[in-house]
Amino acid sequence: MTPEDFRRHGHQLIDLIADYRQSVEQRPVMAQVAPGYLKAALPSAAPQHGEPFASLLDDVQRLLMPGLSHWQHPQFYGYFPSNASLPSVLGDMLSTGLGVLGLSWQSSPALSELEETTLDWLRQLFGLSSQWSGVIQDTASTSTLVALICARERASGYALARGGVQAQAAPLIVYASAHAHSSVDKAALLAGFGRDNIRLIATDEHFAMRPAALQAAIADDLARGNQPCAIVATCGTTATTALDPLTPVGQIAQAHGLWLHVDAAMAGSAMILPECRWMWEGIELADSLVVNAHKWLGVAFDCSLYYVRDPQHLIRVMSTNPSYLQSAVDAEVKNLRDWGIPLGRRFRALKLWFLLRSEGVEALQQRLRRDLDNARWLAEQVAASPDWQLLAPVHLQTLCLRHCPPGVEGAALEQHTRDWAQRLNDSGQAYVTPAQLDGQWMVRVSIGALPTEREHVAQLWTALQAVVR
Amino acid sequence: MTPEDFRRHGHQLIDLIADYRQSVEQRPVMAQVAPGYLKAALPSAAPQHGEPFASLLDDVQRLLMPGLSHWQHPQFYGYFPSNASLPSVLGDMLSTGLGVLGLSWQSSPALSELEETTLDWLRQLFGLSSQWSGVIQDTASTSTLVALICARERASGYALARGGVQAQAAPLIVYASAHAHSSVDKAALLAGFGRDNIRLIATDEHFAMRPAALQAAIADDLARGNQPCAIVATCGTTATTALDPLTPVGQIAQAHGLWLHVDAAMAGSAMILPECRWMWEGIELADSLVVNAHKWLGVAFDCSLYYVRDPQHLIRVMSTNPSYLQSAVDAEVKNLRDWGIPLGRRFRALKLWFLLRSEGVEALQQRLRRDLDNARWLAEQVAASPDWQLLAPVHLQTLCLRHCPPGVEGAALEQHTRDWAQRLNDSGQAYVTPAQLDGQWMVRVSIGALPTEREHVAQLWTALQAVVR
Repeated sequence: MTPEDFRRHGHQLIDLIADYRQSVEQRPVMAQVAPGYLKAALPSAAPQHGEPFASLLDDVQRLLMPGLSHWQHPQFYGYFPSNASLPSVLGDMLSTGLGVLGLSWQSSPALSELEETTLDWLRQLFGLSSQWSGVIQDTASTSTLVALICARERASGYALARGGVQAQAAPLIVYASAHAHSSVDKAALLAGFGRDNIRLIATDEHFAMRPAALQAAIADDLARGNQPCAIVATCGTTATTALDPLTPVGQIAQAHGLWLHVDAAMAGSAMILPECRWMWEGIELADSLVVNAHKWLGVAFDCSLYYVRDPQHLIRVMSTNPSYLQSAVDAEVKNLRDWGIPLGRRFRALKLWFLLRSEGVEALQQRLRRDLDNARWLAEQVAASPDWQLLAPVHLQTLCLRHCPPGVEGAALEQHTRDWAQRLNDSGQAYVTPAQLDGQWMVRVSIGALPTEREHVAQLWTALQAVVR
Repeated sequence: MTPEDFRRHGHQLIDLIADYRQSVEQRPVMAQVAPGYLKAALPSAAPQHGEPFASLLDDVQRLLMPGLSHWQHPQFYGYFPSNASLPSVLGDMLSTGLGVLGLSWQSSPALSELEETTLDWLRQLFGLSSQWSGVIQDTASTSTLVALICARERASGYALARGGVQAQAAPLIVYASAHAHSSVDKAALLAGFGRDNIRLIATDEHFAMRPAALQAAIADDLARGNQPCAIVATCGTTATTALDPLTPVGQIAQAHGLWLHVDAAMAGSAMILPECRWMWEGIELADSLVVNAHKWLGVAFDCSLYYVRDPQHLIRVMSTNPSYLQSAVDAEVKNLRDWGIPLGRRFRALKLWFLLRSEGVEALQQRLRRDLDNARWLAEQVAASPDWQLLAPVHLQTLCLRHCPPGVEGAALEQHTRDWAQRLNDSGQAYVTPAQLDGQWMVRVSIGALPTEREHVAQLWTALQAVVR
């Protein structure tokens, strides 16, 4: 494909995307296809000869579109929002088009420096002190894995330079709320701690970690000769956006010399709103934190912001310095390969920069406030309706709902909940996520897709009331 | 930004990228900026109000372009090629524009199924048996980390479900060639093995792992009561594209029940050429392998193909199944979150699919053969020139050079080598990578950027002869 072909096809593709975004509301939100539909429709081997671009675009429309669940749809309330805002899409396209890599500062200086600069802009917007340094990781799963490996190495006095964690005498222990994301558990397992050494701490009536239970668990481990290592606190849990109390948790971490990692993957975006910062009060007591800018904030996936207070420790754990990656200026620059797992690095800061420059901070703040307001409105409707329950405080933009018609209880209520969620999703009108809360099914409605306005939330409320009948 | 704004600005951006690719040859290959140049030029905080898109594009040209080292330049011979072919750029743009995520099959069925299908297409093109199943990871660093964690868990009988590797009795040992990539070392350290438990195996005169030395190291560990765990063999090392002999290495792995991971990040692309498959003869003895489709093959970064023979083992190590990610069809589908570290997943198969469909297999094969031929031609010129040395066999498209003028030896030769490489890079005419081979500096010339034709390699040879004077 020549650059001139690319120009022609690129314009076609831009139009396809613009049309898609304009008309996505007319599509069913959740894909209505059966497992295997696409595999059966595609050839069993790659084509020997190139095909016209038009046939590719035809197949995108004919084969792929029906198999997409539309995350950018105004009626998408699933999981958490993953907003690919259009300026960030353009920034990401530029990154791919330039095709430069950040193996080292020298391998594309602008890539490293723009990442450093934009991460510092975000640090300020989140109200964090200047003691934090940031880097872009792909996801919170990876950020948390990096954090727990760093915790492991600090607690073991850099065992990786000797016999590794497998030479560990007293078992290193990780603490997290029973409502922590599955990626916390996964990160601890992958980092080698072992399930026996993960403590899931009891939560209070609002699903937040109980500091007294954390304190007791640490005391118990110390009494048993174990070595407490790290605490993962969550600012905005996945099930209910619960807020672990960072000040008491951080004080406990400091008293025992434990690593505190804060998973603010979801709620972190809200910290650009000064009125929300009470939610992570105590954050300055943490050693590391992650905010997924690719969620509510609107940077196209993947853009997980990982901040640390001690970058030298991170570098010491992650650095490699083979001769083929050295350059004359290494002493003067940040080599971001030493800030995470992968060596190769896309120019991901472009999408962050395009979003911030193109929208400006005030517009981002307004959009988040719109979503908070929509969530409050829906919570009011639910609270005023006798057969509906709100199961958790609505700190942010996610509601946890149950419809409890008179006389329907126990297993029947469980079935009713799963049934109406499935009916709603199958209808294509809206996409919600059924989930368990303390062992019982409920339905999460996570507001905050870019195009979701009050009218859409009102439509959802109408649909919810209809679908439960 | 409305979809109509996006359409307008998207067309501008496509033109910018097309113009960039058309004119990149006129730019100096390596960025000619000083550390801090961009940080100093950018504002210290994010803008409060949105700015016109034109001012963003101006800053791209004015501030960013001078700070890029141009990986898509025909005179780029650094590291290994990282080819962002234009069809794959379009596929990636579509991925970003659609903004769908693959948390689970249901969250966008087409995303998971296209990944499964295209990875199977590649499996066939590489000549691999149907026993391999593949998934896209971001980089070989991550793929190798996943492999070593899987090896650790197989050897320890799933210690992660109990006390983790920290409860390991006999130390688990990892073996790799002394010429393995730095990411192998890093992966073993991050996975908790510890530096004391990494054995760097001696290499032969062609920089390939010596099976006898591997065998001896394993015997030595067994005698000491250690537990051999995994071997990482490399097909195309970074310094010289050396080829570890997979058949004897694989036989040793099988005899001792060790995990064999093959790092074919670079040479794997060449396996679409049947005449190159001798290079990884014995690959079917491996447990896992990685091929970076984002290198020579031409898929825009990031697209690291990770294949395993036992996907159930991978899933058992990596799986998480919280209620909010479950769906009714889970038993019938692949949920790719259980095939790697991150939960979130871009629609990365699109760029692979666009490349294969748009170019066809034969065109890809022709391009790789062009590069092999160019490398052979340059090797002939070097071999015929008395002051030049070729330091390693040219299996693929990478040459290891030294210019040795009469009477220049030892430290003076070291200095001469680094000096001329720096002069060449600073001149902007070409980008090469100085590296150490057995403790001495040499210069790697890695041919294979998309636009590099014979005429460019001939220009490079002229420039090399001029710059050493």
